[in-house]
Amino acid sequence: MADSDLFIGVDFGTESVRAALFDDAGACHGEAVVAYPRFGYGAYTDPANHCYRQHPLDYVESFDAAIINLLKPHSEKVRQSIKAIGVATTGSTPGPVDAAGLPLALHDRFAEDPDAMFALWKDHAAIGEAEEITAAARNWPQGDYTRYCGGAYSAEWFWAKLLRVVRRKPEIAAAASWVEHCDWIVGYLTGVSNSRDFPRSRCAAGHKAMWREEWGGLPDKPFWMSIDSKLEGVCSRLYDGTGTADQAAGKLAPALAEKYGLSAEVVIAGGALDAHMSAVGAGIQPGALVKVVGTSTCDMAVCDPEFLRSAGGEEKVVSGICGQADSSILPGFVGLEAGQSAFGDIFDWFGRLIGWRGAGKNNDAILSALSAAAEALPPVVDGPVALDWFNGRRSPDVDLTREAAVAGLSLGVDAPRFYRTLVESAAFGSRAILERFTREGVPIEEVIAVGGIANKSPLVMQVMSDVLGRPIHVAAAPQACALGCAMAAAVASGRFPDLGGAQEAMGGGFRKSFEPHKNGRAAYDVLYARYAQLAAQVSG
Amino acid sequence: MADSDLFIGVDFGTESVRAALFDDAGACHGEAVVAYPRFGYGAYTDPANHCYRQHPLDYVESFDAAIINLLKPHSEKVRQSIKAIGVATTGSTPGPVDAAGLPLALHDRFAEDPDAMFALWKDHAAIGEAEEITAAARNWPQGDYTRYCGGAYSAEWFWAKLLRVVRRKPEIAAAASWVEHCDWIVGYLTGVSNSRDFPRSRCAAGHKAMWREEWGGLPDKPFWMSIDSKLEGVCSRLYDGTGTADQAAGKLAPALAEKYGLSAEVVIAGGALDAHMSAVGAGIQPGALVKVVGTSTCDMAVCDPEFLRSAGGEEKVVSGICGQADSSILPGFVGLEAGQSAFGDIFDWFGRLIGWRGAGKNNDAILSALSAAAEALPPVVDGPVALDWFNGRRSPDVDLTREAAVAGLSLGVDAPRFYRTLVESAAFGSRAILERFTREGVPIEEVIAVGGIANKSPLVMQVMSDVLGRPIHVAAAPQACALGCAMAAAVASGRFPDLGGAQEAMGGGFRKSFEPHKNGRAAYDVLYARYAQLAAQVSG
Repeated sequence: MADSDLFIGVDFGTESVRAALFDDAGACHGEAVVAYPRFGYGAYTDPANHCYRQHPLDYVESFDAAIINLLKPHSEKVRQSIKAIGVATTGSTPGPVDAAGLPLALHDRFAEDPDAMFALWKDHAAIGEAEEITAAARNWPQGDYTRYCGGAYSAEWFWAKLLRVVRRKPEIAAAASWVEHCDWIVGYLTGVSNSRDFPRSRCAAGHKAMWREEWGGLPDKPFWMSIDSKLEGVCSRLYDGTGTADQAAGKLAPALAEKYGLSAEVVIAGGALDAHMSAVGAGIQPGALVKVVGTSTCDMAVCDPEFLRSAGGEEKVVSGICGQADSSILPGFVGLEAGQSAFGDIFDWFGRLIGWRGAGKNNDAILSALSAAAEALPPVVDGPVALDWFNGRRSPDVDLTREAAVAGLSLGVDAPRFYRTLVESAAFGSRAILERFTREGVPIEEVIAVGGIANKSPLVMQVMSDVLGRPIHVAAAPQACALGCAMAAAVASGRFPDLGGAQEAMGGGFRKSFEPHKNGRAAYDVLYARYAQLAAQVSG
Repeated sequence: MADSDLFIGVDFGTESVRAALFDDAGACHGEAVVAYPRFGYGAYTDPANHCYRQHPLDYVESFDAAIINLLKPHSEKVRQSIKAIGVATTGSTPGPVDAAGLPLALHDRFAEDPDAMFALWKDHAAIGEAEEITAAARNWPQGDYTRYCGGAYSAEWFWAKLLRVVRRKPEIAAAASWVEHCDWIVGYLTGVSNSRDFPRSRCAAGHKAMWREEWGGLPDKPFWMSIDSKLEGVCSRLYDGTGTADQAAGKLAPALAEKYGLSAEVVIAGGALDAHMSAVGAGIQPGALVKVVGTSTCDMAVCDPEFLRSAGGEEKVVSGICGQADSSILPGFVGLEAGQSAFGDIFDWFGRLIGWRGAGKNNDAILSALSAAAEALPPVVDGPVALDWFNGRRSPDVDLTREAAVAGLSLGVDAPRFYRTLVESAAFGSRAILERFTREGVPIEEVIAVGGIANKSPLVMQVMSDVLGRPIHVAAAPQACALGCAMAAAVASGRFPDLGGAQEAMGGGFRKSFEPHKNGRAAYDVLYARYAQLAAQVSG
């Protein structure tokens, strides 16, 4: 790496931050992972009420430690070769900031107030608010604002969380602005000192806040006033413009450059959502479906805008998916997002069911034994069949009130067969999403998987390949998100002209490909038809 | 008991025989249980193919041992006070006999041939034959022979088992006759030495062999010839008349009287099916529903024939139940039988699922822990709901192709909730049967339960009471079947004029009553509606 430009990719996940160092050929020269200290011991969370807040100091302290650990083994020369940093975070994970751009939780007055912190993506406290926003959007005379985000606004997203806090806490309603985690961290790194100056992530704005360029930005003020007049102030103090991840957001603030021993010329790329940067790192391009397969899935594709141009010139809505935003994943293309709201979580659920008396302690061992036993079983066309909606249905056609079901049960169904039925159901959910994309005219020629399940569960990936009837390629980069961030950093600092160029130079190809078994396919066509029938039969 | 007449009730169950000694006030003076030696170590069974055969020596040897053990502590005076023996067995459990009434398996030539033995009730090898019989009966010009047995002939019953063996084994097809286990054991005890002389049980004939008095007995020869000409011989050598359990079938054969040290004047009552004698022992009478609640359930009622007299004078069919036969349970009344083909088996299934890695070894401990945890949970109207058809649906409206299902599953459903959902589903199945009886005009004023689950699972019985919205009385006699047999013996020997009189004198009342919780009922009405909806939605 002596003569290469180097880039740091930073992935703020749900529980920890990961920083990794890449050269311009994509080789990884070290990584460091640091858990969020407060979140790790359960501070500011209330799982029974689906409340998950994160303190900004968790982000700052873990980031500092990760960068310092990452750079520790490296020489001054290597440090000076670092040209840029790219950052992705979970989202929608918004929080309130003061006029100077400081998160309110960093004021003594709010230091222990969860509402002054960042509301983690999986915080569902604002279900009622999300329903209100959906209802208002559907009836809005100028058109349904949710039409590009699946026709329903989610409790996980920006406005619902903001509305809930603004109503409950007048003192927080007075905050200068609200930012996504990825906006704030980029602002922190570039030394933003005014809430108006935050670079705003196109990904987060487009997929979580209903921002669209042709609408002039966010939904307009009268819309928000129709929901609650308490929104008047805050909705005037948000933002109009957004930036993509491959654009430079600024340079590393001098104080931080000094702290980390980096050049003050280091470029900070625009913030992005972690799933989108995973897709970039995994090699997303038109024709590819990239699946981040973990506890849930995020299924992403990018599409030439011309493909989606309607006769009237407006962008056609890809029906039944949950997000569609210009340049969100790959600049120049429409980013499309769908997903299953439970995937690995389904298997985890069954492991905990089986391991009930062990209080879930040996879940990995149980799942590994179940997996081995289930792998030996063939698909059975008249055996049990399940619906995978253990956490509601995100795609296709979002309906979080839908629930999972298992039919075709008999006394002969044992734990490995039950487990395999759940694996099949998860794969059927994937097939329903893929079929929706193609039905809507989005070409899918290749399926690429990343994430924990993709790397750790050959049974699940093989069944998915059989059910989809397509090869599934597992991306080589185990940390696709950090690599994607490094690619964005490389482009933002001018090393490559665009993300496509960075992918070509830095992309790692595939670690493993699962090919569909010819025999499996026919059985799974029958079982998939039964899945679809059960989905139609069991009411919501 | 010094001056009292004494009666022995003998209950041949699936795995063992139980003999118990009662006086004429119903007090029990000892019991003895002896397992079938061959069946106990798995001889002549092939569970993978649902084949379960029992060797006649299993019955004879275990009966001998049980009677000898039962009488061992008792004086000569007590022995001489024993006036009669009543016997019930599982059924339909038929087997072939030679001209002298000896089961073919007692000939050296057939000693190891399972087809020459008794085919236990739960032997399902003859599924195809049962379907043929059903199809032929439905199309029979003189009327559907299955109309009094639920509209479908079962693989568990007499003719299906006989047809299968007759087709496969010409040498067995030449047998002089076929008998039910209860017919044969009564013949054995009374010294029958000609196959034409067996007393034939009304219960077994009426419920398992389509015998009806107004038809002149069994379905006629042309019907059987239309199915297979191989039936020609055997169907001429069966029987016309039947007897009820309260009638004397004969006296104890002198050789046996000597062996047991009993008087040769001991009366042997007519044979009966175990469930029916349990109902008698539990106090069945018009207006009562007696539920034998074990691995499956048998739900029985008796009805004044006048209640079921149609305008045309024919007996009205109680639609959707699985058996209706005059004088089968209580002489003088129409005996009605319905049931759930899996009940305790459902809980056992879940215990084995949970205890998968322990290979089912601690199932009792697991179920007891699950039960304790589930007892603390309230019913949840929008929680999970299940269909109980883990072994097909016996009643109402038999359809053994139906399967179980669970809907409303989410990541929050843990093992105790899943278990409770299964308990509720089993209770909903009970409610569907009870509602069918009342809808068909059979009055049900009282619900009485006997059997293993009734005595051991207060959670299950309480949920059932809540779901039915009625008190459930658990019969005091822990061995209701043996008591019922002793009652029949008492009547057959002239001690009481009829079974009603014997029940009054010897019946033990109730051990415990479960009263419906007022709060539970409303929730279960909602959940039962969801059960019915799911049943309608999920196709067979």
